[in-house]
Amino acid sequence: MTTTGRQLTSTLYPDGKMILALEETEFVDPTGNQVLIRMEAAPINPSDLFLMTGGADLEGAAYSAGRIELQVHPQAAALQAARHGVPQTIGNEGAGTVISAGDGEMAQALMGQRVACVPGNAFGEYALADAKMCIPLGDHTVEEGASSFINPMTALGFVETAKREGNNAIIHAAAASNLGQMLCRICREDGLELVNIVRKQEQAELLKSQGAVHVVNSSDSDFEQSLADAIDKTEAFLGFDPIGGGTMTDSCLRAMERVAAAKLPEFNRYGSDQPKKMYIYGRLDKSPTILTPAFGFQWTVSGWLLMPFLASCDMSTLTSMRKRVVSGLKTTFASSYKTRVGLDEMLTKAAFLDYAQMKTGEKYLVTPQA
Amino acid sequence: MTTTGRQLTSTLYPDGKMILALEETEFVDPTGNQVLIRMEAAPINPSDLFLMTGGADLEGAAYSAGRIELQVHPQAAALQAARHGVPQTIGNEGAGTVISAGDGEMAQALMGQRVACVPGNAFGEYALADAKMCIPLGDHTVEEGASSFINPMTALGFVETAKREGNNAIIHAAAASNLGQMLCRICREDGLELVNIVRKQEQAELLKSQGAVHVVNSSDSDFEQSLADAIDKTEAFLGFDPIGGGTMTDSCLRAMERVAAAKLPEFNRYGSDQPKKMYIYGRLDKSPTILTPAFGFQWTVSGWLLMPFLASCDMSTLTSMRKRVVSGLKTTFASSYKTRVGLDEMLTKAAFLDYAQMKTGEKYLVTPQA
Repeated sequence: MTTTGRQLTSTLYPDGKMILALEETEFVDPTGNQVLIRMEAAPINPSDLFLMTGGADLEGAAYSAGRIELQVHPQAAALQAARHGVPQTIGNEGAGTVISAGDGEMAQALMGQRVACVPGNAFGEYALADAKMCIPLGDHTVEEGASSFINPMTALGFVETAKREGNNAIIHAAAASNLGQMLCRICREDGLELVNIVRKQEQAELLKSQGAVHVVNSSDSDFEQSLADAIDKTEAFLGFDPIGGGTMTDSCLRAMERVAAAKLPEFNRYGSDQPKKMYIYGRLDKSPTILTPAFGFQWTVSGWLLMPFLASCDMSTLTSMRKRVVSGLKTTFASSYKTRVGLDEMLTKAAFLDYAQMKTGEKYLVTPQA
Repeated sequence: MTTTGRQLTSTLYPDGKMILALEETEFVDPTGNQVLIRMEAAPINPSDLFLMTGGADLEGAAYSAGRIELQVHPQAAALQAARHGVPQTIGNEGAGTVISAGDGEMAQALMGQRVACVPGNAFGEYALADAKMCIPLGDHTVEEGASSFINPMTALGFVETAKREGNNAIIHAAAASNLGQMLCRICREDGLELVNIVRKQEQAELLKSQGAVHVVNSSDSDFEQSLADAIDKTEAFLGFDPIGGGTMTDSCLRAMERVAAAKLPEFNRYGSDQPKKMYIYGRLDKSPTILTPAFGFQWTVSGWLLMPFLASCDMSTLTSMRKRVVSGLKTTFASSYKTRVGLDEMLTKAAFLDYAQMKTGEKYLVTPQA
């Protein structure tokens, strides 16, 4: 038995041609602890867009019904040789209803329920998923549950990482995002200090209206000094940066060192001995990361990714994180969306050009059954 | 009682004026476990030059007997406010003869002996040092012992760091340096694989003539592929880079990822899950470090500095490292010098312009008693 439905895929060719298309796809019946989910709501996250845009000129792409043809720079295409000609399904996470289940006990228990999942092909009508990776949504709607994995687990992961490394304060860049607002709420609940970096005055006001204490605007001329002041108050020598490219991570390390160096009894040519650490967890800016030689040698910059972090957690930590997410879907872990688009509308020029900008507070929700 | 002798100092002023000068300095008699050493040989290391050049135009500096006046960029000067107007002594390490000792047993035991030391003012006629930081040289000459601390302990520190983190192979950039040649010998003795990166053909030949197996030339057009080939053979996913600025660390991470990605069963948008790590332990290039978004998220770049590393070692590790150094001063840990200069000659234009270039194989030895 098979179920057939449309699925968004991205296919890259060696010459840089990239096709986004809705393809009729067959889903075999679930076995064991698999479930088949009718997908009803899926957020377009920055992590999805990487496979969809490839740094191409979106304005100059060719749009037709259910299809976009883009031209990726051949050098960028060459770096992704492993996916040449192989359609990649898109959509990391979403929520829907379990319409079929394998014999396994965990799968059977989910039959007919609304669940959140991370199938990797959430932008489609159906998805097969492992029952133990599904989160039953109970009374919550699919829209409330659509973003219950990536942002919530990432925000909880930052806090867990900070605690593990002995920190009680965090710097967060691009802090007005859905994820950033969530992190504000978690840090308040857990008693961690949080230094929020935004780039617009209205973002600063938004976070302050939600109770954020330390908000610094990177567009202000005294940004690094304001950041240093906030670090001095909070002792935040650990930060998370989703921008990646450019100088954000550098600014954070410089400001940390400014605070630490001011407390040195005498000049040290090698800088302070205060450990300083920045995690880069995204690449909103795909230009190179710039690190100036202005913060001595006691520093670390490292990539941070959700799945390896989750793999580093023991089962009881994971279970308590998931329970906390479900119980807070309307509060701590609530997400908001600018608009909803069906699969066809998702591939129109107007929609694509809009959501690909990843503007703060303008996240799209895909509704594959619409 | 005091002993008077000349001492090289560097004084930076807020406007960027920097004075290198030989100043008459008084050394009080040693007490407790202090010893007073008549300094006889001290290498000019890259770590000394940072305080001496400050990125100034050396050609345009004003040279007079025992004095150089430089103009540092005011922005660079502003970053070092803690040393404005305060003379900094120069010379990290050296060797000489103990001419006076405190009452302490360790100090008394060194009386009259030749010792190596890390006083921080080795470019001078005398230095006070803590007896327990001195290394008795036995039958070795002061010239053999002059560089017995920084390079040997750093090279041993790389190997110790690699082993601690579970690595059995190392990449080393600027590998033809005195330190790099030492590291080759240590890795051979300890059975570690070493990938040597040089930038000139003659450096490659030098290392190969000394038995190096993997030597890659960064000036070759196929540098990153050659580096990847060497990484593939050695599994060197950890490296040490003294250049710091520019793209050396980036090239190493890219090559590591190229090797790891080639082994992935399918394309992964987040890159391989192979941990990749580069330590920056110097700043031969003071331009910013450039990190391109080409190696996923499983990577770490971190500063590495000798003193914090030593502080992280237990006493038995430190003791065995020091014993190993002394027993290998003529072999594994031997250094070579281009020439010798007295304190006055050290401040002549001809000498300064030459050693400040830090050319491979052209290290200067200061002989303060000459």
